[in-house]
Amino acid sequence: MEMTQQDTRKLLNQFFDSVLSYLEQGQLETEIIKPAVSLEELEKIFTLDDPGSAANIKTLVDQYLASAVRTGHPHFYNQLFSGFSLYGFMGEVVTALTNSSMYTFEMSPVATLLEKELVTKMAKLVGYPAGGGTFVTGGSNGNMLAMLAARHRFAPQSKWKGLSGLSPLVAFISHDAHYSMLKAASQVGIGIEHVKKIPVNEQGQMIAGALEDAILDAQNKGQKPFFVGATSGTTIRGVFDPLEEIGSICSEFDLWFHVDGSWGGSVLLSSAHRDLLAGAELSDSFSWCAHKMMGAPLMCTIALFKTPDILVEINQISGTDYLFHDGQDIQLDLGNISLQCGRRVDALKLWLAWKYYGDEGYEKNIDRLFALAGYAAKKVEQSAQLRLMNDVKSLNICFQIRPENVSADAYNDITVAVRNRMVETGGPMVNYAYINSDLVIRLITANFELRKTHLDRFFDQVNKAVDFVLAKK
Amino acid sequence: MEMTQQDTRKLLNQFFDSVLSYLEQGQLETEIIKPAVSLEELEKIFTLDDPGSAANIKTLVDQYLASAVRTGHPHFYNQLFSGFSLYGFMGEVVTALTNSSMYTFEMSPVATLLEKELVTKMAKLVGYPAGGGTFVTGGSNGNMLAMLAARHRFAPQSKWKGLSGLSPLVAFISHDAHYSMLKAASQVGIGIEHVKKIPVNEQGQMIAGALEDAILDAQNKGQKPFFVGATSGTTIRGVFDPLEEIGSICSEFDLWFHVDGSWGGSVLLSSAHRDLLAGAELSDSFSWCAHKMMGAPLMCTIALFKTPDILVEINQISGTDYLFHDGQDIQLDLGNISLQCGRRVDALKLWLAWKYYGDEGYEKNIDRLFALAGYAAKKVEQSAQLRLMNDVKSLNICFQIRPENVSADAYNDITVAVRNRMVETGGPMVNYAYINSDLVIRLITANFELRKTHLDRFFDQVNKAVDFVLAKK
Repeated sequence: MEMTQQDTRKLLNQFFDSVLSYLEQGQLETEIIKPAVSLEELEKIFTLDDPGSAANIKTLVDQYLASAVRTGHPHFYNQLFSGFSLYGFMGEVVTALTNSSMYTFEMSPVATLLEKELVTKMAKLVGYPAGGGTFVTGGSNGNMLAMLAARHRFAPQSKWKGLSGLSPLVAFISHDAHYSMLKAASQVGIGIEHVKKIPVNEQGQMIAGALEDAILDAQNKGQKPFFVGATSGTTIRGVFDPLEEIGSICSEFDLWFHVDGSWGGSVLLSSAHRDLLAGAELSDSFSWCAHKMMGAPLMCTIALFKTPDILVEINQISGTDYLFHDGQDIQLDLGNISLQCGRRVDALKLWLAWKYYGDEGYEKNIDRLFALAGYAAKKVEQSAQLRLMNDVKSLNICFQIRPENVSADAYNDITVAVRNRMVETGGPMVNYAYINSDLVIRLITANFELRKTHLDRFFDQVNKAVDFVLAKK
Repeated sequence: MEMTQQDTRKLLNQFFDSVLSYLEQGQLETEIIKPAVSLEELEKIFTLDDPGSAANIKTLVDQYLASAVRTGHPHFYNQLFSGFSLYGFMGEVVTALTNSSMYTFEMSPVATLLEKELVTKMAKLVGYPAGGGTFVTGGSNGNMLAMLAARHRFAPQSKWKGLSGLSPLVAFISHDAHYSMLKAASQVGIGIEHVKKIPVNEQGQMIAGALEDAILDAQNKGQKPFFVGATSGTTIRGVFDPLEEIGSICSEFDLWFHVDGSWGGSVLLSSAHRDLLAGAELSDSFSWCAHKMMGAPLMCTIALFKTPDILVEINQISGTDYLFHDGQDIQLDLGNISLQCGRRVDALKLWLAWKYYGDEGYEKNIDRLFALAGYAAKKVEQSAQLRLMNDVKSLNICFQIRPENVSADAYNDITVAVRNRMVETGGPMVNYAYINSDLVIRLITANFELRKTHLDRFFDQVNKAVDFVLAKK
């Protein structure tokens, strides 16, 4: 089973060839986005209980690649991420090659510097001149960390004595906030029922007046308001809560102000659009997924804090002297501000990509994505059988299929049938969701390689799928 | 800034050459483990504020590689992981290439199957015939998830109403348990003071009788015992708590029984050594880091549960219908049992490595690592100036430097000075820690490429460093 250096080089060279041809195929317009491979077929190929084929790793890799959803293709509009970042990819390869852990400067000197620099830079973009933070494992984790920090500010004894015996803390988010805010409340012991959902206006923004009412109502009930989570870029409609108004309410009532910018945080890089986040500097914490609108490979989420010392307070614990040794390095050991002990290097991929694009490159790309979203919205509006269902403020275009001579109560079914038809035939991949009781197709323009011609083709495919679905009825 | 397909291929080919030569250099015995690059030098090279060099990504990659600690080298004994997994690496590259997320089967069909298969297989190895689980972000996260599950069993209303108003829950771990158990208690709202540290015997194992006393004591104080965390492979001494005794106590008092097998879980793959984990089947949950003793790239941790339905209960939440659509797939959507929403594919790397090694390959490698630990322990015992400080039961060899004619109160200082001397000169990299008040060098034999000759050379280097340190005094 031992391999010589020559064998290894040969195997890796063959493997890198597979990588290159996968990338090159991905750029052909005729590519299938989601290969039609059945569960049964997959189960036959991918089993551990078959030692006969054990050595044939290259074949398995090729089969994996052949069955994978092409998230790098411009026609992948399905999630809040899309695309392939060449420099991000190189960062991931180097990360795997050097296989280090982020707890100490001694172990990961360069990655520590890169993470610190990125965190500082992004904190400044939010409007935290003395800010900092840490890479976390995703937007959900960032939101949870923010709620934990808020809990610590309002009930610091909870770190030591828990929440039992304290009066209930109450959090506020909008009706359209991401479900991870509720999970965060469950995790940190606040409880989901102690998260109050504030109504949104017609566009989907939190209504600031309603927030104020809800805070007063909680106070009257003897509960302790502590946390407001605004969303900058909601999951379905991509709208931005009014941060200035919310910030001023948080300041009035002395509440922790968190911004879930997992999706929309990257808009801070665009001078044309960063007004959407006006007031971000009033917040105490901010989650930002660079693997979404900045195209970095998953996962690449940064949790930012106006006063990062709170991270030290949350994480300081006894029993870590085997890891963090006294001396000058301890100031540099990022394990001291992380919920994780071992932690993968997530900074390198973003740093390399940023080095390549520069602030200007990101700005240009993001502005183009906004323009493309506007173009897609117009395409929807110009189509007789499509109906735009959201006010397009960023990169989410929500629409419903409403063919002539079809009754309104069939719109939902037809819309999902059209979407599924496209996915089943390997065509453009797009997701669906509900806005109130309307099922909508949610088109996301997040891919840096996306062009108008792709969108033209996407809507052609929608039309074809509509024809198919209607013919089948 | 746009690149043609040809440019991309050229860049990636050059890049893959850097990768190959890094790997080949790493196999030379003369390599430096920790390159001596100062913070100042690094800060000069690695700054985002230098658009002039922005395009020169290849140079930056090479400089990163030149400054990285060689965690793949057999002389990297510093952490509970070491080595380079060729198939794991290929898994990581494919993961980055396909850049998908684990929430739905639709998005990651194969990765979902692989994760399910690995989780089921590993659960069976623990002794959970109907078990399951999920990949998590590390041992700390796995321990936290287990405590959250236990909290849910004993206070299911806490998910909805929080912990405020409930009587305090109390957890029990050994004095030598990992610090993440305390952090978990803080995160989930139990509180660090409600984690009772049970004394250990001379070898470092939790004393079962003392656990029983502590439980009774808590009950007498009106507290509610709910969780016992045993450790299978402690961080410093690598000892295994007596799971059968602890399990029987947990059953007697009806407590959640968690095993932190982050370090030692992989011993289940060895018929010669799995007795160390006898009684694991009595537990309710089990954390297992495959990036440690199985050599998978970081992070690769699995949290296993005897009755995995508890994960559904913890994670079920409203507001997820945009992601998890009704239909047959929903049973396959791993996002339903995960604290994360977006989640990186961590299964592929382990699955490919397992496919290559097979159970037998892992067993052989792990048995060899145990034999090498025994060899290292003997080398320590045979040396007049070294003193073995732990009963070597697995892969941790703790020793102190005790040269002749040096007074006992200088042992700690000399030991750390010798360790630092080796690291500063780029020699074998090994960590130090305290056992009670004794500072010890903790040698870990976790690298599948490790041979006796490496250990011989390691001890030669220790002797050289001792001479240097004594000469300098």
